[in-house]
Amino acid sequence: MQDRMMAAVLYGVGDVRLEQRPVPVPGAGEVLVRVHRVGVCGSDVHYFRDGRIGHYVVQAPMVLGHESAGEVVALGSDVTTLKIGDRVALEPGYTCGTCRYCKSGRYNLCPDVVFMATPPVDGALAQYVAWPATHCFPLPESMTMDDGAMMEPLAVGLWAVERGRVRPGDVVAVFGCGPIGLLTLQAARTAGAARLIAVDIAPARLAHARRLGATDVVDDRSGDATEQIRQLLAGSGDAWSSMGVDVALETAGSVRTTRNTLQVTRPGGVAVLTGLPAQPMVELDIVSAASKEIDIRGQFRYANRYPPAIALAGSGRIDVRSLVTHHFDLMHAQEALEFADARKDVAIKVMIDLV
Amino acid sequence: MQDRMMAAVLYGVGDVRLEQRPVPVPGAGEVLVRVHRVGVCGSDVHYFRDGRIGHYVVQAPMVLGHESAGEVVALGSDVTTLKIGDRVALEPGYTCGTCRYCKSGRYNLCPDVVFMATPPVDGALAQYVAWPATHCFPLPESMTMDDGAMMEPLAVGLWAVERGRVRPGDVVAVFGCGPIGLLTLQAARTAGAARLIAVDIAPARLAHARRLGATDVVDDRSGDATEQIRQLLAGSGDAWSSMGVDVALETAGSVRTTRNTLQVTRPGGVAVLTGLPAQPMVELDIVSAASKEIDIRGQFRYANRYPPAIALAGSGRIDVRSLVTHHFDLMHAQEALEFADARKDVAIKVMIDLV
Amino acid sequence: MQDRMMAAVLYGVGDVRLEQRPVPVPGAGEVLVRVHRVGVCGSDVHYFRDGRIGHYVVQAPMVLGHESAGEVVALGSDVTTLKIGDRVALEPGYTCGTCRYCKSGRYNLCPDVVFMATPPVDGALAQYVAWPATHCFPLPESMTMDDGAMMEPLAVGLWAVERGRVRPGDVVAVFGCGPIGLLTLQAARTAGAARLIAVDIAPARLAHARRLGATDVVDDRSGDATEQIRQLLAGSGDAWSSMGVDVALETAGSVRTTRNTLQVTRPGGVAVLTGLPAQPMVELDIVSAASKEIDIRGQFRYANRYPPAIALAGSGRIDVRSLVTHHFDLMHAQEALEFADARKDVAIKVMIDLV
Amino acid sequence: MQDRMMAAVLYGVGDVRLEQRPVPVPGAGEVLVRVHRVGVCGSDVHYFRDGRIGHYVVQAPMVLGHESAGEVVALGSDVTTLKIGDRVALEPGYTCGTCRYCKSGRYNLCPDVVFMATPPVDGALAQYVAWPATHCFPLPESMTMDDGAMMEPLAVGLWAVERGRVRPGDVVAVFGCGPIGLLTLQAARTAGAARLIAVDIAPARLAHARRLGATDVVDDRSGDATEQIRQLLAGSGDAWSSMGVDVALETAGSVRTTRNTLQVTRPGGVAVLTGLPAQPMVELDIVSAASKEIDIRGQFRYANRYPPAIALAGSGRIDVRSLVTHHFDLMHAQEALEFADARKDVAIKVMIDLV
Repeated sequence: MQDRMMAAVLYGVGDVRLEQRPVPVPGAGEVLVRVHRVGVCGSDVHYFRDGRIGHYVVQAPMVLGHESAGEVVALGSDVTTLKIGDRVALEPGYTCGTCRYCKSGRYNLCPDVVFMATPPVDGALAQYVAWPATHCFPLPESMTMDDGAMMEPLAVGLWAVERGRVRPGDVVAVFGCGPIGLLTLQAARTAGAARLIAVDIAPARLAHARRLGATDVVDDRSGDATEQIRQLLAGSGDAWSSMGVDVALETAGSVRTTRNTLQVTRPGGVAVLTGLPAQPMVELDIVSAASKEIDIRGQFRYANRYPPAIALAGSGRIDVRSLVTHHFDLMHAQEALEFADARKDVAIKVMIDLV
Repeated sequence: MQDRMMAAVLYGVGDVRLEQRPVPVPGAGEVLVRVHRVGVCGSDVHYFRDGRIGHYVVQAPMVLGHESAGEVVALGSDVTTLKIGDRVALEPGYTCGTCRYCKSGRYNLCPDVVFMATPPVDGALAQYVAWPATHCFPLPESMTMDDGAMMEPLAVGLWAVERGRVRPGDVVAVFGCGPIGLLTLQAARTAGAARLIAVDIAPARLAHARRLGATDVVDDRSGDATEQIRQLLAGSGDAWSSMGVDVALETAGSVRTTRNTLQVTRPGGVAVLTGLPAQPMVELDIVSAASKEIDIRGQFRYANRYPPAIALAGSGRIDVRSLVTHHFDLMHAQEALEFADARKDVAIKVMIDLV
Repeated sequence: MQDRMMAAVLYGVGDVRLEQRPVPVPGAGEVLVRVHRVGVCGSDVHYFRDGRIGHYVVQAPMVLGHESAGEVVALGSDVTTLKIGDRVALEPGYTCGTCRYCKSGRYNLCPDVVFMATPPVDGALAQYVAWPATHCFPLPESMTMDDGAMMEPLAVGLWAVERGRVRPGDVVAVFGCGPIGLLTLQAARTAGAARLIAVDIAPARLAHARRLGATDVVDDRSGDATEQIRQLLAGSGDAWSSMGVDVALETAGSVRTTRNTLQVTRPGGVAVLTGLPAQPMVELDIVSAASKEIDIRGQFRYANRYPPAIALAGSGRIDVRSLVTHHFDLMHAQEALEFADARKDVAIKVMIDLV
Repeated sequence: MQDRMMAAVLYGVGDVRLEQRPVPVPGAGEVLVRVHRVGVCGSDVHYFRDGRIGHYVVQAPMVLGHESAGEVVALGSDVTTLKIGDRVALEPGYTCGTCRYCKSGRYNLCPDVVFMATPPVDGALAQYVAWPATHCFPLPESMTMDDGAMMEPLAVGLWAVERGRVRPGDVVAVFGCGPIGLLTLQAARTAGAARLIAVDIAPARLAHARRLGATDVVDDRSGDATEQIRQLLAGSGDAWSSMGVDVALETAGSVRTTRNTLQVTRPGGVAVLTGLPAQPMVELDIVSAASKEIDIRGQFRYANRYPPAIALAGSGRIDVRSLVTHHFDLMHAQEALEFADARKDVAIKVMIDLV
């Protein structure tokens, strides 16, 4: 095996450089993965464009990318669960395993998490990555490397639905039909949503949502999404449903969609905030929300969602493949980031191919 | 409207008589329903064949049938939610609405429940039934009267899955592929089961299970279902899943399947007992079950499952129609019961057509 | 029994008049209660002072009062669960019993609720009230009529704790030490809170909180409650607890305490909004809250809390009696309202005695 | 520090020998604890008397004891959360931290658990133990070393109550008033049980139960515990409660109490099986249990219960001290085991003092 590799390193705003680095050596419990695919996430674009996300600031050169899949090419010591040649999806965050968050099933809240491409941790946009075997999940034959890289955003969607407690027969609204929205939509369908309302301002994304199972789509370019949803529900002739949706899932990350999410939730329902507005302080009608006795549940990444993600994508119940609209090679990583940023009209998931 | 109707009345073991009765007059809050379809349930067969189910004993002549759908033909006073001509499925049990069970969301446990065809309450196997409007659920155009009558057993299946807390990605086993088993199977799939193992001793039922979404079928004529399941799970190459299924759902009602249900459940998993053995005292390996820290959850009918049942069947996510294998008319109600009892090899759901 | 009675009727802002009314006749399922005690609630004061609460506007003369206890003096037809002479607490809201909210255990969200002293429904501040027997809960001998009238605000506190899922060993903060706050505090202690931080700006209320089980009190006159709480938790030497409280319960109803409630909740914790700010739109740091993955849960009254309230107060586990600081008679109902409004410095619960 | 120590080693049935062993050297992340107290658990007695518990068989010499507390006297590398001189309670099981059980909050089900005094792992009945710092919980000044050793059985009681979902106001029955029963009783009280029925056949234990908060005690020497409980509940005059207890907690581990536990649980209630009968197959009225739709929940040790145990015992809300009835020194470890086995009439918790 070669001992040098190429990695795409963010040096500053708008400045990604391909540079040579030594191939990492897997430590105890780690495997060396030859990376095949890395998906471009909104957070990658943010770091690339702005150099920061909130209080996470890129200070030293950092490798981007945390949605990845590849092939196991070497084993560190004490690895028994994987073998060379395994095709794996990499869960990008590993945690201490001993704090109360880790021990109580919500390891995503571990304060000592090490998460790819979150400063100062390097990401996966390199030809090789050494990573804990426990966080490399084998892919069934039915899944491609593209599919494998999509497990990360699918884990987000599945966690949104877990946070929202979607149950069979529920009426669900999903705000935003980007990659996270379209995967959340499918996760909600998988959890039993019988009526599934997708909201966006891009007709192409709404069309995609419909193909993926949305029973109703709401074009919010007119700014009247809540009124459109109200009319859709009133048409059901069911007093219960006419009061709002059982679960509303916010993935768009704007102030307006956050407000709308609370507004369309029926009394006693659940609103999940997966997307986050850029500004910290948001004016909300919290009095109405609380009087309706709804739950407003935040989301931070996910916990324990790789196994169900692989089970559901591997069995064909969730379609991740159609979301991959564009491919770039590692040489054009910067172009991939620029394209993902500039062309949200046509791009859903931009994938970088390393093999 | 005519003032006389025909009803199929159980007079004793094996003795169903068609007799003329006055058409009931809907009271306040009730509607008069012209019954179109009544499905034959295992409990109907039990009363017909044995005159009793446990401590429920048929003493006076009783109209059978509690899986029904029909058309609203008259309204009692104070009915605002339905209109003449509405096609409805009838939820067969209504409850006091004021006890702590009713008020805490588990009205199925109300000690004052009035339930069709459970002594001494008459059932739906009559040309007309007067029933509370609150317990008549309108059917969308996409649903037939056959479908409507199937909402009752589907409600059972959905409640099993609710009791079992099936979540997206789960591995689920369903013991028994009769009508309840096949509907529970679909309910589990709707709730996100990624791997769905169906167990029965009738190849035709297993084939039907596979058509309805079972990913694996286990023919238990050899009596080694738990070993077959163990091998299926071991083949997954996943240490977690190889310890057992996340949720096991028992619908067959035998001692052996009850034992198997506990045995195949993984540590920390849930076993739901929907079917019940004929004998009260059952010898179980409760020590193993408790040491695995599983939940063994009983089931008694269902609560609040008609709306999701109609939403899921109406949108095509659950197929109830293919389960209706045979039709009889009201004149041949006794033959329908005899056939349902004798020909489990070919019959799944036997339907009695009144219109 | 006499056929005339006196009632305290709100005619307009600041205008309560004692007037003669016919004693009501209990209908089917109702009992006639001779009212002994009515507690003055903040909502009574709001209607008295402002003529409205949000979109609830007093338009016709309305009897105030919804925290009441009394003696059953006559039975309507069909009443089997109560007898003349029973001492009862009256749950002030009754609901349709048939909508999906009622049937799923959250009857407090029933759109057809009839709730005492909420326009246009008359309240309990009258010598006699006819009320559904199902909503009159017998008091054990250990409880006084004062105690009985306190079951209503205690039900609010118990529901806050139910919404917040307080578990044994939790660290809990309660914002606001008025009647609801002090009862919520005790409810949290009853549910197992091991550390219980009370926040208020009135030293007398904080002292009362400490007597009722608060392990720490925070005087927020300085406006630095969150910093004080941070220091209290840091002193615990426990990394988990130093990140915030497990459950934060807001009962003060101000913008600042609402913000503080979200801020002091640890990642993955629960914030319950029982009090509501006067203004609908509130600027909140929802991004931090969602990134911490907390649940923000609203509250609207309560469901199924009278039985536990009576069980806990009756067995002495919760002290409601010490909260009753002042008594007025019916003749001085207006003075009671004025006093409750003006003297929050000394009054916790003002009680009106009708017997 | 000395390099030799004494340990109490089980060589065979009834054969405990004090022998000299080297003081262990704490590895990375471990601390060396000078053991002060070790409580004698029923499992220690079983291994001592029978050489086995089910399929756990003592084969090589094994140090007994897993309820322990002591003082940190040396730190291995990488220990930052403890310092020399800390007084700690030792959680006796540590787990892999990476399997799905560990990562989903139920680490007690980890198949790779290392648990003190469970073959082949040595226990704590030695002058020094090296143990992971993450599993050593500092004791507040209010707690003695005796208290510290009691955290282990208290964790069991708290987990029983967590499994049982005891809520404020519940009616709870506890079968068995040995150490686990008395701690479960207190845990249930801490979680809000308003009525708490203790069942045993030893009057002294029932008297102790009453002192610790039982509102009712049932002497089952007559074998009619369920009838006594029925009468107690009927006397409450409350239709709901007269149907059974909300939560029944079995800690006695006999076939009869297991049956009784299911029998006294109300419809929709929860039965927790903490104790386990000696025989694997148990004949139960599972049909009644399932028809009542109760949950039968097993228990295997506990997860995440040391922090609440210490918070509740440290603040005085739970009394562990009065359960320690007898002390022996390390020289008399064998006598301690014999006494605990033979004198259940007077002994509740037998403690072995090493310092």
